[in-house]
Amino acid sequence: MKDDIKNALNTMKLLGIDMIANAGSGHPGIVLGAAPIIYALYANVLKFNPNDPWWFNRDRFVLSAGHGSALLYAALYMAGYEISLDDIAKFRQAGSITPGHPEYKLTPGVEVTTGPLGQGLATAVGIALGERYLNTLLSAQVPKQKVIDYYTYVLCSDGDLLEGISYEAASIAGVQGLGKLIVLYDSNDITLDGEKSLSTKEDILKRFDSIGWHIDYVKEGNDIGSITKAIERAKRVTNKPSLIEIKTIIGRGSFNENRSIVHGKPLTKDDMANIRKQMNVTTDILEVNTDNVAFFRKTIHKRLDKYLAGWQKYYTKFKTSNDVEIRKILDFLATQNFSVEFNSQNFKIQDMYREELRESNSKILNIISDRTNFFLGGSADLSTSCKTNIYKSMEMSKNNPLGRNIYFGVREHAMGAILNGMALSGFSVYGSTFLAFADYLKPALRLTCQMNLPVTYIFTHDSVNIGEDGPTHQPIEQLASLRCTPNLDVYRPADVNEVIGCWDSILKRRKPAALIISKKDVEVIPSSKGIETLKGAYIIKQETTPLKAIIIATGTEVTTALKIASELDQGIRVVSMPSVNIFTEQDSTYQEAILPKNVKKISLEAGSTSMWYRYVDYPIGIDRYGLSGKEQDVLAALNFDYEHIKKQIETIINN
Amino acid sequence: MKDDIKNALNTMKLLGIDMIANAGSGHPGIVLGAAPIIYALYANVLKFNPNDPWWFNRDRFVLSAGHGSALLYAALYMAGYEISLDDIAKFRQAGSITPGHPEYKLTPGVEVTTGPLGQGLATAVGIALGERYLNTLLSAQVPKQKVIDYYTYVLCSDGDLLEGISYEAASIAGVQGLGKLIVLYDSNDITLDGEKSLSTKEDILKRFDSIGWHIDYVKEGNDIGSITKAIERAKRVTNKPSLIEIKTIIGRGSFNENRSIVHGKPLTKDDMANIRKQMNVTTDILEVNTDNVAFFRKTIHKRLDKYLAGWQKYYTKFKTSNDVEIRKILDFLATQNFSVEFNSQNFKIQDMYREELRESNSKILNIISDRTNFFLGGSADLSTSCKTNIYKSMEMSKNNPLGRNIYFGVREHAMGAILNGMALSGFSVYGSTFLAFADYLKPALRLTCQMNLPVTYIFTHDSVNIGEDGPTHQPIEQLASLRCTPNLDVYRPADVNEVIGCWDSILKRRKPAALIISKKDVEVIPSSKGIETLKGAYIIKQETTPLKAIIIATGTEVTTALKIASELDQGIRVVSMPSVNIFTEQDSTYQEAILPKNVKKISLEAGSTSMWYRYVDYPIGIDRYGLSGKEQDVLAALNFDYEHIKKQIETIINN
Repeated sequence: MKDDIKNALNTMKLLGIDMIANAGSGHPGIVLGAAPIIYALYANVLKFNPNDPWWFNRDRFVLSAGHGSALLYAALYMAGYEISLDDIAKFRQAGSITPGHPEYKLTPGVEVTTGPLGQGLATAVGIALGERYLNTLLSAQVPKQKVIDYYTYVLCSDGDLLEGISYEAASIAGVQGLGKLIVLYDSNDITLDGEKSLSTKEDILKRFDSIGWHIDYVKEGNDIGSITKAIERAKRVTNKPSLIEIKTIIGRGSFNENRSIVHGKPLTKDDMANIRKQMNVTTDILEVNTDNVAFFRKTIHKRLDKYLAGWQKYYTKFKTSNDVEIRKILDFLATQNFSVEFNSQNFKIQDMYREELRESNSKILNIISDRTNFFLGGSADLSTSCKTNIYKSMEMSKNNPLGRNIYFGVREHAMGAILNGMALSGFSVYGSTFLAFADYLKPALRLTCQMNLPVTYIFTHDSVNIGEDGPTHQPIEQLASLRCTPNLDVYRPADVNEVIGCWDSILKRRKPAALIISKKDVEVIPSSKGIETLKGAYIIKQETTPLKAIIIATGTEVTTALKIASELDQGIRVVSMPSVNIFTEQDSTYQEAILPKNVKKISLEAGSTSMWYRYVDYPIGIDRYGLSGKEQDVLAALNFDYEHIKKQIETIINN
Repeated sequence: MKDDIKNALNTMKLLGIDMIANAGSGHPGIVLGAAPIIYALYANVLKFNPNDPWWFNRDRFVLSAGHGSALLYAALYMAGYEISLDDIAKFRQAGSITPGHPEYKLTPGVEVTTGPLGQGLATAVGIALGERYLNTLLSAQVPKQKVIDYYTYVLCSDGDLLEGISYEAASIAGVQGLGKLIVLYDSNDITLDGEKSLSTKEDILKRFDSIGWHIDYVKEGNDIGSITKAIERAKRVTNKPSLIEIKTIIGRGSFNENRSIVHGKPLTKDDMANIRKQMNVTTDILEVNTDNVAFFRKTIHKRLDKYLAGWQKYYTKFKTSNDVEIRKILDFLATQNFSVEFNSQNFKIQDMYREELRESNSKILNIISDRTNFFLGGSADLSTSCKTNIYKSMEMSKNNPLGRNIYFGVREHAMGAILNGMALSGFSVYGSTFLAFADYLKPALRLTCQMNLPVTYIFTHDSVNIGEDGPTHQPIEQLASLRCTPNLDVYRPADVNEVIGCWDSILKRRKPAALIISKKDVEVIPSSKGIETLKGAYIIKQETTPLKAIIIATGTEVTTALKIASELDQGIRVVSMPSVNIFTEQDSTYQEAILPKNVKKISLEAGSTSMWYRYVDYPIGIDRYGLSGKEQDVLAALNFDYEHIKKQIETIINN
């Protein structure tokens, strides 16, 4: 290694471990082990512009091993991003732009929130799918264009590859043949609990080969040149994603190198001195050798300036295009947003309408998708059951990158993370499975919420009334569980009008959403109003005698509530609450107009009652697992059949 | 194929598809495709006794593709289990023993609740680990004993292998070298949504080879002989688990064979007639050819009677042993239970005691584990952080099957399912990870709850006060989410006395549990009482002036509540509620003694407030994601620091 490079690499390492020592917490093992990989990437490979960190044609880099944040911040600082030494000194402090794990939008140069293992790699698959889609879309207008043409790189750890989600996503990347996805695997044989061999004994390259990846190996993790060359080889493989295993030593140079204890605790003072001694360096903690930083930046400028200027020139010419399709794409790229003409007031559903709600939802999905190229999605092998395919389009594949239907296979978890990746590329996306299987993807959905991405999870078969498939397929706790997830809009519409309203709200709010859809066929409710869905709840049946009680219902239970109310007492008001959390956001005037104080309130929903006590004293629901049987028998066994509910409500009202 | 075999196989197929047609729902594709595999297993391979379905040395069979329940019930009926034709006719009806997906304990011969894909295979890994442990334990007393010596077989589908959990678990089976785990892979290249190639393109045998499995291939899925031989070859491989890929045709013989539409809907009448015609059979729906059943049973008896009688004789001799260790094991095997002397009243913690709760928990775990061989567990690569290792023991491995510490790697999901498998073998087990990562294993935990198994999930780092690691690692919604899961005991103890009480409760109740443990060091609370934990909640500070308000707190917030109460007003009662759901089970007299009506009630817990409204009007908690920073700064940013909470409570009380 040339001295200049070695010195700059040492500066990067020191900045990383100093940051951690200064913060009093963090993960030095990966800093010392993987710094050469990050060095190779930023110095020799990545296309980026530190002065314009969100430049849309930048190569994406995802630090799947999010605990390596200190290394990433060190690299970003050295590369010239707007991160100051002061920011570095505030590593892991409240309010800083250098948090403990990378957080999307908080730090220039950070693409994805990572930390929970496996998620970063899976998200990167979505980012790469997004690039391919946009690239193909624009190339269909201007063949061989170079406006959009970026790679997605990932640094992943042994831990990432242990998680099932990384396997799922890697398999999808394989079948999709994502040639522009390149994963650098920091292979050090150590996990938090000790030697990796305690828990795994795999030939990982063979495994990735078996699922359709290009594989490569760098035996000396310190060799920046070899790492760079392996990446260049990977870039030449255009029909397969690449995994490059790079043999590193965790905590290299520390007294504890190659041991798990170097993973997650700041190095001791002695060890810091020991490392500096090996480097022949005498700088103080967080004192940066500016020559080394300058050398690093010079390397980058030398490599990129001409390309960046050329791209800008090319793009400027391009921008003047008057072609409508090209304009749409360029606007999307520039704003990372799109508008779609959709308004729940435009839709008038006739009174006699009756169909399965998943069918209604399907129609609306297809209407929206007809109006923009930037709305698409897929299913975890349940598109035929959830009815979420875009009929005019095909499956997304290597040969058909513009297919709007992504076949994720039975891989809910990867679906969630891949949707996150596509949303990070600006798309509004959706994915479908049964509500009972929402659990499988929760860790990815949590990141959707933390990153505030416009991903809609369509969960159908929303209740025990699916019947015969039994308790494993009957959601009970899922609705309550989704509703307590911060920053998630949860919708459970009662009929087609409300489904329309939900989509109106989803498109307007552009944030994480779960849309809970019944499998049942439902009659349109004459008094239902899509537009009211935007407020979360509204009066769907006004009392006509003095107000005696209010039933709040959601989804298919709204029809039940209406029937009971009209049969029992004209003093019963029925409130449809398609979105509890949006209703909770409303001002108290609105809330009290819908739900005045000092009136008996009952909730009716075929699921856990745990969160309903906020609004009612008498929640009627289901707090145990279901059973396999015909719908009516199942409901009866759970005391949730019509007659039983009616009697219960009668008792509450009359007491 | 001999005619007798062919006829019996046809009877099995017809019984399966008839059952489905009769029920009006179900999955005929797998019945017609995989029947020869099930035939080979029951006729030629499995050791079992239909008259004693829970005989402890039976081979275990796990139908991971749980949607194939009709095929399983058909086989069990034909094999002579106590399942009548009437039960078969009630397939998928409420109250029957033949539900839509197999349910543990409901049907003789059904070992595991399956249906959610991937879970069965992963659970089987736990069952195989359990067998190895018990086998080794007994063999340590009586070398080469044959009392416990069973295999675990799995039938899995393409869908099972798509799920990340199956990869995670298979990798663990590989490193553990589970020679007695044999997976039969029903490989038909079709998933619900169409051709498998839409979503995956893997060389699955190569993939399993890469993770340490013996692999084999049967190219003709109809060839019962070849299937049997492949299983016999697999049994000879003693140091690796086996995957046998068997090429089948989904819906074989149906008009729709080899197409996804045959997967999940009853066959038409025409198609039923078509199949019968091919078979040259004229029986009515659900009319069974008794000769064919008799032949099948005879095959089984011929193969097994002598072995079963021999085993019984051997075991009878064995049973008379007076050796204490042998007796313990035999009692365990016979009862699938064990007793452990542990009582929270035996432990007196001195007043000055102060330590991290995870440390207290570690001590108790080790005390319990000292007293029985049937209590063990592991961690998803966080044993050093969660502190859940058994210090006197080693890691569980191929060379050390009696190790009590299972290194699951960063594979929370497989951990959950494997723990289920070990609990199905009679063990009380635990697994640990951070509370924020509880989401990763929820689908397995749900099955723990549905099967009512004694698995304890130890979730440490229970709140935002972990600080620097930031929002990805800070649980917010997890507690509320766990609490709405039916049949799960959720515990969040306040100090070491309550941790002891929780374990007392866990051992007594022997059911699914989540134990939420703080990372913080906590002083023992002089008024805390372990024994009261068994009732879910108790008064930890009695008001000394007329009762003005009650603060309900859990975990580390109990100390905060006590301090605030003593500083603010002697009319404040503090209730510690280590288990909300156990408190909810108590009678109303107890509940009202603790929480009288018409008193202001406040809850205090560092997490989602959503489920607290059941007990209080003023929940104080955190309903947004956290941030990375020092504990105090994080709490302040979330309005959850001491001063802020105190002021809030003061305002509530004085209003």
